[in-house]
Amino acid sequence: MSSKNFFLKKELPISKLFPKENFTKTQRIKNIKPLDKAQNGDLTFYDLKKYQNLANKTKASFCITTKNLSLDLPKKIKIILVNNVLIELARITKLIYPLADIDYPDLSLKPISKLKLQAVKFGNNVLIGKNVKIGKNSIIGSNTIIEQNVKIGNACIIGSGVIIKNSLIENKVVIQDNCKIGQKGFGFIPMDKQNIKFPHIGKVIIKSNVEIASGCTIDRGSIDDTVIGENTYLDNQVHVAHNVQIGDNCMIAGQVGFAGSSKLGNNVSIGGQAGISGHLKIGNNVKIGGGSGVIKDIESNEIVMGYPAVPLKEFLKNKKDKNGNR
Amino acid sequence: MSSKNFFLKKELPISKLFPKENFTKTQRIKNIKPLDKAQNGDLTFYDLKKYQNLANKTKASFCITTKNLSLDLPKKIKIILVNNVLIELARITKLIYPLADIDYPDLSLKPISKLKLQAVKFGNNVLIGKNVKIGKNSIIGSNTIIEQNVKIGNACIIGSGVIIKNSLIENKVVIQDNCKIGQKGFGFIPMDKQNIKFPHIGKVIIKSNVEIASGCTIDRGSIDDTVIGENTYLDNQVHVAHNVQIGDNCMIAGQVGFAGSSKLGNNVSIGGQAGISGHLKIGNNVKIGGGSGVIKDIESNEIVMGYPAVPLKEFLKNKKDKNGNR
Amino acid sequence: MSSKNFFLKKELPISKLFPKENFTKTQRIKNIKPLDKAQNGDLTFYDLKKYQNLANKTKASFCITTKNLSLDLPKKIKIILVNNVLIELARITKLIYPLADIDYPDLSLKPISKLKLQAVKFGNNVLIGKNVKIGKNSIIGSNTIIEQNVKIGNACIIGSGVIIKNSLIENKVVIQDNCKIGQKGFGFIPMDKQNIKFPHIGKVIIKSNVEIASGCTIDRGSIDDTVIGENTYLDNQVHVAHNVQIGDNCMIAGQVGFAGSSKLGNNVSIGGQAGISGHLKIGNNVKIGGGSGVIKDIESNEIVMGYPAVPLKEFLKNKKDKNGNR
Repeated sequence: MSSKNFFLKKELPISKLFPKENFTKTQRIKNIKPLDKAQNGDLTFYDLKKYQNLANKTKASFCITTKNLSLDLPKKIKIILVNNVLIELARITKLIYPLADIDYPDLSLKPISKLKLQAVKFGNNVLIGKNVKIGKNSIIGSNTIIEQNVKIGNACIIGSGVIIKNSLIENKVVIQDNCKIGQKGFGFIPMDKQNIKFPHIGKVIIKSNVEIASGCTIDRGSIDDTVIGENTYLDNQVHVAHNVQIGDNCMIAGQVGFAGSSKLGNNVSIGGQAGISGHLKIGNNVKIGGGSGVIKDIESNEIVMGYPAVPLKEFLKNKKDKNGNR
Repeated sequence: MSSKNFFLKKELPISKLFPKENFTKTQRIKNIKPLDKAQNGDLTFYDLKKYQNLANKTKASFCITTKNLSLDLPKKIKIILVNNVLIELARITKLIYPLADIDYPDLSLKPISKLKLQAVKFGNNVLIGKNVKIGKNSIIGSNTIIEQNVKIGNACIIGSGVIIKNSLIENKVVIQDNCKIGQKGFGFIPMDKQNIKFPHIGKVIIKSNVEIASGCTIDRGSIDDTVIGENTYLDNQVHVAHNVQIGDNCMIAGQVGFAGSSKLGNNVSIGGQAGISGHLKIGNNVKIGGGSGVIKDIESNEIVMGYPAVPLKEFLKNKKDKNGNR
Repeated sequence: MSSKNFFLKKELPISKLFPKENFTKTQRIKNIKPLDKAQNGDLTFYDLKKYQNLANKTKASFCITTKNLSLDLPKKIKIILVNNVLIELARITKLIYPLADIDYPDLSLKPISKLKLQAVKFGNNVLIGKNVKIGKNSIIGSNTIIEQNVKIGNACIIGSGVIIKNSLIENKVVIQDNCKIGQKGFGFIPMDKQNIKFPHIGKVIIKSNVEIASGCTIDRGSIDDTVIGENTYLDNQVHVAHNVQIGDNCMIAGQVGFAGSSKLGNNVSIGGQAGISGHLKIGNNVKIGGGSGVIKDIESNEIVMGYPAVPLKEFLKNKKDKNGNR
């Protein structure tokens, strides 16, 4: 299921993609994948030292990276050396997936009356793209849009005014009114006059028993996927950026925001309006106080609070010291 | 008006609801209500010591509580002792109101052209549920959904793309584009694999002259109601959780978030992005600075700021001390 | 382009507007404009000492102000002295623009099938108001509403469920799903029982190559305009209040909020969930850390962080001192 691809893919020989490199004409890239998910035939990229462990073990056949970082990669991988990994990755991804850098509205949408989806109940004015699959006993509210190739499982309740694209949704998922799921994330390369838009070829995976309250935005992954784990609940107006992976049984309160690519374990609870910076690793059973700003990795079982977030004991100690100053 | 009930109610004898208790077969529960609103014949619940004053005076006939807390209740009330009040309350509420724990989209919605609502102006594609009432000189914008039994007063201006359910709205209320009002709140009992969804049988009451800006979410009450007082204004993207009660003449700036069940007095002003924790009591004429995190009750006429919020003088003092350290 | 007016204007002689002043009957107000944009024949207002420099140089013919502030105005301007500038300004603006203080839904909207807009692609159920202009090669997603007189340039991609009013949008702009652009801002004069709603006669101007992610709200200006500069990118759920002016090449991360009337330079980057208070001036090349609360002007090239935001060095120093206290 998770290998499904939502974007038009051009079959270009690798010699055309990297004309300066010494590739045989017929060789092709199977897929573009992150270090830990790439397989034989895939292109990957390595741009941050913090992913050294994944770089050591990647099974990709090709990797875009810098000279310094290239030393961490397996010997048999074909390395493409560049000065700026993300610019080159954006260029190549755009060549292979030319329609993934802007969210072109799905013009294949049709009113539900013209389609046949059995054992699914629909409100009014529901619009469904081609090749959408919806499982039995699911209900889709009025004015909701489900774009092409989206798959929704059994017994899901999707509210009104919801927009879903580039997503795979498992069973018994509840999505309340007006959520936006699967749109492009905030990824681009800043340039004067006209930024380079980073193609987002990933998707959103929402596992069984998840509940997502009103007005949330869940961006799809750029190269990787965005994942919400089983039985995790999100409150209203939560913002989940691209590539974020949230574990099972988590509780995310209202207006929490995630920057991109952070990974959370299971049983994590996050209080309202907390913010989680990008590329962090949060362990299992972590509790993050409301309004906190998390800027460092958190070990399992920790309780943190504050801006920037520190272990709860430290937060209370600092507060006491501050008052003691008076 | 405020006793209106939006959810299908099953008439079950109390002996079936609590088979282990010694109830006569024919006895019935009139309603499920919070301590202070329950009347003779109603079931209530008591789970937090901070509501002791309300427990002392409740007029309910039945109360779910724990052994320790039960001592605070009036003598003549029939007590149902449990280990976990909210689990038992969820179980009973789900038996009586079987459709209140998930926001099933209203499939009774119909395009406005088939209905007759005089002296009301409608945009395009408005969808209205059965038994909706809208007062004269009100205007409802395009693509707006008003679900069954909602009541809207006179001279209200409801924008486009708005979704209203389980709500009673008084006169001269302005609700701007894309607000979501009356959906289920973030209430559940965490369980491994599959949380217990807490039924929300309350509603949203919006009093006269209120203005609510774009993209706000106002959850309905769980057992109690969510209330926005007269002439109170909310800016864009405000999140009001279940059971919150905001007084009259308040000003709530953009992106403010309320956790559940807090009660605000009149003339309260709250700066942008502030967060208010759950179950707090905020007095009259309170001013809360932008970005503050309020985690304690606030007396009337206080000005607070900071994270956590403290009286303004203390906030400024602390800031000065910090700078003095250098 | 920027002088376009979206609101019905009544042609009232100035003697009717200010009956207590000594105006000749036939004199008229050309327009109501802020100090720096008013021209000969226009009415302006001056209510905050911090705009003294603009007051000195205003070309307006009439100005509402207080006795103290009036000394800063050019000699030949006709001064209307009042106790409360904003109350008087609201009164006059409401007389001239009687429909600008509430967002009355546009009842001129029509399904796109009845209109002719060539070289534009539309999804389903798009609604367009009278006199809307959309440039060639633009695409408009399903369920999107574009109200009367809005102008959208060439090669713009507008997502689904978007609502745009009172706005001028240049070329190659991307607006993702469910943004709300051009609605009235949070401006009113607090009054017991019934606030005075401040008319918003400004608009939103979005320059070329801008990208705005899902669920953002951008309020139109009150007297001035709200402006998003060229090639500036906004992430999901950003709130931009009335009269805010953002420069070119800025990056605004998720859930950032702006209070009214602040002006940002070019190349400013703001981290997620940061808040910017009202009436501030932020220079060029400024970096504002995620979660910060900015309450003072920031010079060009500064990096700030914290709540309230201070220069990064100071923030780190304070953090160290705090830890050193232990």
